[in-house]
Amino acid sequence: MANLVNLRPSLSLSYDQECAAKRTSLSSRLKSAPSRLYIRACSTDDSLQPQCPSLAFSGDNSSTRGWKVMGTLLGLGAVLAYHDHRCRATQESPHVYTREEVRSHSSPETRIWVTLGCEVFDVTEFVDLHPGGPSKLMLAAGGPLEPFWALYAVHNQPHVREMLAQYKIGELSPEDKVPSTLKTSDPYIDDPVRHPALKVNSQRPFNAEPPPELLTENYITPNPIFFTRNHLPVPNLDPETYRLHVVGPPGGQSLCLSLDDLYKFPKHEITVTLQCAGNRRSEMTQFKEVRGLEWNIGAISTARWAGARLCDVLAKAGHQLCETEAHVCFEGLDSDPTGTAYGASIPLARAMDPEAEVLLAYEMNGQPLPRDHGFPVRVVVPGVVGARHVKWLGKVSVEPEESYSHWQRRDYKGFSPSVDWDTVDFDSAPSIQELPVQSAITEPKDGETVQSGEVTIKGYAWSGGGRAVVRVDVSLDGGLTWHVAELDGEEQRPRKAWAWRLWQLQAPVPAGRKELNIVCKAVDDSYNVQPDTVAPIWNLRGVLSNAWHRVHVHVAP
Amino acid sequence: MANLVNLRPSLSLSYDQECAAKRTSLSSRLKSAPSRLYIRACSTDDSLQPQCPSLAFSGDNSSTRGWKVMGTLLGLGAVLAYHDHRCRATQESPHVYTREEVRSHSSPETRIWVTLGCEVFDVTEFVDLHPGGPSKLMLAAGGPLEPFWALYAVHNQPHVREMLAQYKIGELSPEDKVPSTLKTSDPYIDDPVRHPALKVNSQRPFNAEPPPELLTENYITPNPIFFTRNHLPVPNLDPETYRLHVVGPPGGQSLCLSLDDLYKFPKHEITVTLQCAGNRRSEMTQFKEVRGLEWNIGAISTARWAGARLCDVLAKAGHQLCETEAHVCFEGLDSDPTGTAYGASIPLARAMDPEAEVLLAYEMNGQPLPRDHGFPVRVVVPGVVGARHVKWLGKVSVEPEESYSHWQRRDYKGFSPSVDWDTVDFDSAPSIQELPVQSAITEPKDGETVQSGEVTIKGYAWSGGGRAVVRVDVSLDGGLTWHVAELDGEEQRPRKAWAWRLWQLQAPVPAGRKELNIVCKAVDDSYNVQPDTVAPIWNLRGVLSNAWHRVHVHVAP
Repeated sequence: MANLVNLRPSLSLSYDQECAAKRTSLSSRLKSAPSRLYIRACSTDDSLQPQCPSLAFSGDNSSTRGWKVMGTLLGLGAVLAYHDHRCRATQESPHVYTREEVRSHSSPETRIWVTLGCEVFDVTEFVDLHPGGPSKLMLAAGGPLEPFWALYAVHNQPHVREMLAQYKIGELSPEDKVPSTLKTSDPYIDDPVRHPALKVNSQRPFNAEPPPELLTENYITPNPIFFTRNHLPVPNLDPETYRLHVVGPPGGQSLCLSLDDLYKFPKHEITVTLQCAGNRRSEMTQFKEVRGLEWNIGAISTARWAGARLCDVLAKAGHQLCETEAHVCFEGLDSDPTGTAYGASIPLARAMDPEAEVLLAYEMNGQPLPRDHGFPVRVVVPGVVGARHVKWLGKVSVEPEESYSHWQRRDYKGFSPSVDWDTVDFDSAPSIQELPVQSAITEPKDGETVQSGEVTIKGYAWSGGGRAVVRVDVSLDGGLTWHVAELDGEEQRPRKAWAWRLWQLQAPVPAGRKELNIVCKAVDDSYNVQPDTVAPIWNLRGVLSNAWHRVHVHVAP
Repeated sequence: MANLVNLRPSLSLSYDQECAAKRTSLSSRLKSAPSRLYIRACSTDDSLQPQCPSLAFSGDNSSTRGWKVMGTLLGLGAVLAYHDHRCRATQESPHVYTREEVRSHSSPETRIWVTLGCEVFDVTEFVDLHPGGPSKLMLAAGGPLEPFWALYAVHNQPHVREMLAQYKIGELSPEDKVPSTLKTSDPYIDDPVRHPALKVNSQRPFNAEPPPELLTENYITPNPIFFTRNHLPVPNLDPETYRLHVVGPPGGQSLCLSLDDLYKFPKHEITVTLQCAGNRRSEMTQFKEVRGLEWNIGAISTARWAGARLCDVLAKAGHQLCETEAHVCFEGLDSDPTGTAYGASIPLARAMDPEAEVLLAYEMNGQPLPRDHGFPVRVVVPGVVGARHVKWLGKVSVEPEESYSHWQRRDYKGFSPSVDWDTVDFDSAPSIQELPVQSAITEPKDGETVQSGEVTIKGYAWSGGGRAVVRVDVSLDGGLTWHVAELDGEEQRPRKAWAWRLWQLQAPVPAGRKELNIVCKAVDDSYNVQPDTVAPIWNLRGVLSNAWHRVHVHVAP
């Protein structure tokens, strides 16, 4: 642990001092040091929380945000009044149904109706097209969508509302307009308080990333600004009563492990970068709309993780490698109202390989896992997409097939640009496991003005599968000529380069240039490279966005 | 072996019949079946050899080729007369030196002179710049270059002659113009007879590839047209007296294995695609000149290899995995006039991993290895660049460092496009091991005319490191819109997808189109993709050329 102290800033006053010292030492090299955000970490002050919990919908574009703020200020009544107004404005004499009538339409035989606000929709034809799967939509059959949309905030986007509008058949009768289920308590009300520096992409479930200029300030990302990707509300687990259920092999015995039991396995500690499959999705959206959270370049972070090796725990339960293909399935303790937990799986071969260093982690940067990152235990699968690093781990089992979870089989897969929501066949593509080579520029920022003379460019680079980053090329002229950046960060182990490299380049600004088109691209030790442009790798879910990162800046006269 | 029979054509009349049957069955699908070459394999008829052995220089451009033909027709006298003529034409009264005087200039202290034909050069300043390393050039110090250039035919290119011309200081005196060492016997005279279908990139050493239309005719490439990459003359080894020397660990015992000894290890058989790092180099050259053989898309082939697993042989010699980084070094029995053998190395971790399936192969497609492919024993390193699959294997040792061979340390490495021969630092880049994802179009060919209506496009796709190809996208409009191709070939094993996938697409030709810009790009199971264009991956040795493959065709009216 001793060497960790040097790498990991303590999240207190001394951290601020360390940042300040670093800024001073850098200031001579940086002609124009951009203003920086200070991290006041681990605060529990409620005033840091940007919004109070409410049932208001969260969204990403400004009109939705406006609506959210209105809902927060004026409460539910105002929101419904707004709905009411819209209904009256758009439809002169709609059909009127009672909630009782709606309730009687809850199967394909009777047709499937749902409500949203005052409006009634017949979604029978849409059920099989529902991206989350028919079963999820059927949970709302005959009733209101609100309790589910509050959970899956991804619905609160303009195109979802447009799609739904096609199925409108009428309105609720005035006496039925307040759905009783709206009184259900907010499932996210117990979510932890977050650091105000985080850029929030979705409040419920909570999804947020650190701003670029903080992202590469430290090789190890401080816990409070580590990017957060939640699919469901954060469970509030008691470490005393927490148990991890490890299903034994056929005829064998299952394990039921307390935290103390886990601590008894040899403690293994490694530095691992986690990246969401949707990192840099916003660049894909710029080319053509996709479904998903609008991640910028910050859905990636690096921590020092410690825990038991999965292979040791599986061996203890009597599992061994088998000749036939098998998968280790993980289930989280986060779940939706029907009790369906988050789940994912990885191949047994990776899980059982000591060199793959898959962890059941209980420490992140020397601290117990923060609640947002899986307290008390999460999976860490080095070199693999974040979606398989299941948090709030409840159950581990070995199965002949991949996890049947929605997130394993109907999400987190890549498709050709030619595939749309009408033609997609999720079974035709493998689930994302190892990620491709990636890099991005964190400084300067797009649209910034840099000084003439010399420019300092900083960023990160990483590749999946333990492949080391061997080079980062940076261009100031959109890719016509290239410079080789200097790689920083920890030395990488062969075949086990689980963590990113930070990089920087100081390059002269060619005289007379009024603007620079800065581009970066990384090369890993299999000599895989990033593609030049985003359009040819566009896919309907907006995952695997790893084209050259491009930043356009102005040069001060 | 039974299942192999179906995959591997027998190289006789039945093979022709099989081809013919295949063509017939395809003809209904192919609107325009291009004419095909028939393989008459395993022939030993000398008339098949395109050129008689001679000291004439081989080269790739037409002027050099013309010179080669002239040399072959008229013999050495004509070549020297031609040189003589050039010397007289370009320099009116050159300095004249005797061969004795040249011989006295063979060290930095006395300066370093060499001769080529009638010309004398002072290459003192060039020695440290020699791409093959100073030591190789010093072998010729004080004497003629011809014996060495006959071995390393890469020198016979216009830019090498131009470079050399800068160092000219005079001419040989008339009585000294025929260098005695030219009487040395041709080191390549004992090379085997090759199949006439092969496209020869260099005759000495022999480097050749199958034509694209034969390459994807079979999932398993027939031995006689498997691409050949030789660095030196082909040794003629007696299987009775052949011995493989396996150096034991410190304090342990070395092994000296006959072929019969090798046969006693468990026989392991796998289908593996080999690709030269220089495959598709000619596309890089089109952007900007590089040094290297002008490979088209055929420096890749697939065979069924059988032999002993390297891990079994190393274990027998007492080796085991160690904590510190180590390398398994291979030495071939092919060597240059100084006795320097071809050599390369791979990390010990890969060599010792049974799942990596590294072979000491003695069979290729059910036959003993052909001489061009390493008879009697070669290394096969699945998923790794061809250069490490050392042929005519003589020695295996475990070392703390990579092989000191020129081909490990001063070749087969990738660099930024900004690096040129003045700035290159070979120690700054890792040696190529696993190769990046690759694909190419074998039909139709560039410039061909296809029928309107429907077009059939065929090709191959492969990735290094055992990563399976999961998708090939094909575009008819230069990459604006995409189709997903159908993948053929053997089912791939997870993490051990050592062999290529062949693919094809039948797509309607958009009405009214007079030409098509056909493009392909592959995706592997780490979701790595090929870069869009070649310029940003250009490198001075022209390796790792894996940008989208592009073919321009005309549509028949």
